[in-house]
Amino acid sequence: MKKLINAPDRVVDEALAGMAAAHSDLIRVEPPNIVVRKDAPRRGKVGVISGGGSGHEPMHGGFVGLGMLDAACPGAVFTSPVPDQMQAATKAVDGGAGVLHIVKNYTGDIMNFDLAAQLAEAEGIQVKSVVIADDVAVKDSLYTAGRRGVGGTVLAEKIVGGCAESGANLDTVTAMCQRVQDNVRSMGMALTSCTLPSVGKPTFDLGDDEMEIGIGIHGEPGRSRMKIATADQIVEMLMTPILEDLPFKSGDRVLAFVNGMGGTPLIELYVVYNAVASMLKGKGITVARNLVGSYITSLDMAGCSISLLKLDDEMTRFWDAPVHTPALRWGL
Amino acid sequence: MKKLINAPDRVVDEALAGMAAAHSDLIRVEPPNIVVRKDAPRRGKVGVISGGGSGHEPMHGGFVGLGMLDAACPGAVFTSPVPDQMQAATKAVDGGAGVLHIVKNYTGDIMNFDLAAQLAEAEGIQVKSVVIADDVAVKDSLYTAGRRGVGGTVLAEKIVGGCAESGANLDTVTAMCQRVQDNVRSMGMALTSCTLPSVGKPTFDLGDDEMEIGIGIHGEPGRSRMKIATADQIVEMLMTPILEDLPFKSGDRVLAFVNGMGGTPLIELYVVYNAVASMLKGKGITVARNLVGSYITSLDMAGCSISLLKLDDEMTRFWDAPVHTPALRWGL
Repeated sequence: MKKLINAPDRVVDEALAGMAAAHSDLIRVEPPNIVVRKDAPRRGKVGVISGGGSGHEPMHGGFVGLGMLDAACPGAVFTSPVPDQMQAATKAVDGGAGVLHIVKNYTGDIMNFDLAAQLAEAEGIQVKSVVIADDVAVKDSLYTAGRRGVGGTVLAEKIVGGCAESGANLDTVTAMCQRVQDNVRSMGMALTSCTLPSVGKPTFDLGDDEMEIGIGIHGEPGRSRMKIATADQIVEMLMTPILEDLPFKSGDRVLAFVNGMGGTPLIELYVVYNAVASMLKGKGITVARNLVGSYITSLDMAGCSISLLKLDDEMTRFWDAPVHTPALRWGL
Repeated sequence: MKKLINAPDRVVDEALAGMAAAHSDLIRVEPPNIVVRKDAPRRGKVGVISGGGSGHEPMHGGFVGLGMLDAACPGAVFTSPVPDQMQAATKAVDGGAGVLHIVKNYTGDIMNFDLAAQLAEAEGIQVKSVVIADDVAVKDSLYTAGRRGVGGTVLAEKIVGGCAESGANLDTVTAMCQRVQDNVRSMGMALTSCTLPSVGKPTFDLGDDEMEIGIGIHGEPGRSRMKIATADQIVEMLMTPILEDLPFKSGDRVLAFVNGMGGTPLIELYVVYNAVASMLKGKGITVARNLVGSYITSLDMAGCSISLLKLDDEMTRFWDAPVHTPALRWGL
């Protein structure tokens, strides 16, 4: 296993310590391993939290800060955080206006966020939840009943964070998150497997000339394994199911998000974005906003995912709103 | 070869087309393949340009925009741009106050920037150059007489860009660039080789349990090949030569930059940053600013580099100044 780590069981703690050291102006890291916005709780502001297994960095801890998340709960690598973490995060960010849980659709995450919500409500904190399930690749999967939550989560956290920052109440913030979920679709692919630090060898075998289309962010099987194709062909294979599903159509305005899986360099992501932009132009769909980079990763997996979000004016405004987190920053 | 590309000879053009499509609010891409700040030339502002082989993205094209570079000249992958590109970029950004060339110390880059400077001067544009040579790993190398220019270039481009944006004249901007060069030291390492699209197989062989310390950004040999070590040990091996070279000493204030080589995920970079921050703290050196991410890469190489810049108040102020480029953005 080739990784820049000290020991498999220390990766998450040491990465969090590194984040805390690098971004002490924005975040604090507290027991039981939660990343909290430095100035939380903010009185009267709806708190927005998310969480999930580690190994997808910068998601979610890198999105904590003004205009995005108030806290994040990182589990062990590819393992749901425990309810204690979500409960502690909920309490840490509650400013009296309630807390929204943004939950990626994985069985463990759903269960543990649910339990944490009950515990927090028993303490008098109002909690709502929205489940993100944007992956069109497969209906059910290894870790999921229904679609998996993937790249759309990044877009939801930014837009919902902007909405909460604007002073909207819990119902409005929750509705905005549901609106993003209803309008976003994603699909990913891998050129290589990821390797879990605790396992030390690739999660799955993929031939030197093979790729996996429709892969999940934990290396879960996708739609098909096939010979490696060109970037244009891969974009076609990812975009067609995405476009047909909503469906997206001529005249729509979208946010196009090309995401790297962790082991893929930026030059390749721009080649992919070029193909995505050309394809959308050919279909009369306007790319009003875009994001290109590695924001929801699968450890060292090489590959990419594409997400399309059908925008309206309000979502666009909250996307553009100021954000100041370790991984996304503008307007400040 | 596993890459998200269409054809080896189209990678650079398509990535540039992707960048132009994604960032049309910030940059334009013009013949002969130069990335130019959208609103260049700006009357009375010193122009700042850089360039080098492609394959190091986001460097340099991703650093074009307000507060950083006015233009970038991307060559073919790992190949110096041609003098035509530097000459065209120099003309495109000259607002009458002259142009600074920030040149990484590689023989081809030096030669071609030199020729371009002569051609531009013959057309009446005042040109100055500063060579960045911050890599302490080796004295000379495959492509270099003297030290290689690596991570310090990112820091120089940001700080010098801030200085130029403030309205400083060409002599002042040049002196600021030289001051960054004089105060920055770097060293890198690799867990895996990179693979050039045109070659299709790894540039060098590295055993499953081996790493290369002191590697160059084109996979040039470093100081030593050895069994893979822990992140803490690797940080010690990179930091000791850096610290001893300037030398950095107790009481110094530094900018600490942990850079990913392209194939390394962020979670590992934060583990490395944690070790860097601990080591500096132990030596009484204050980390006043930091940068963690993949900003000067070597295609899909796994590994990292560390750069330390000894800061003064003016450099700190220009580092903090607003920047709006595809890859770095704050204050706006």
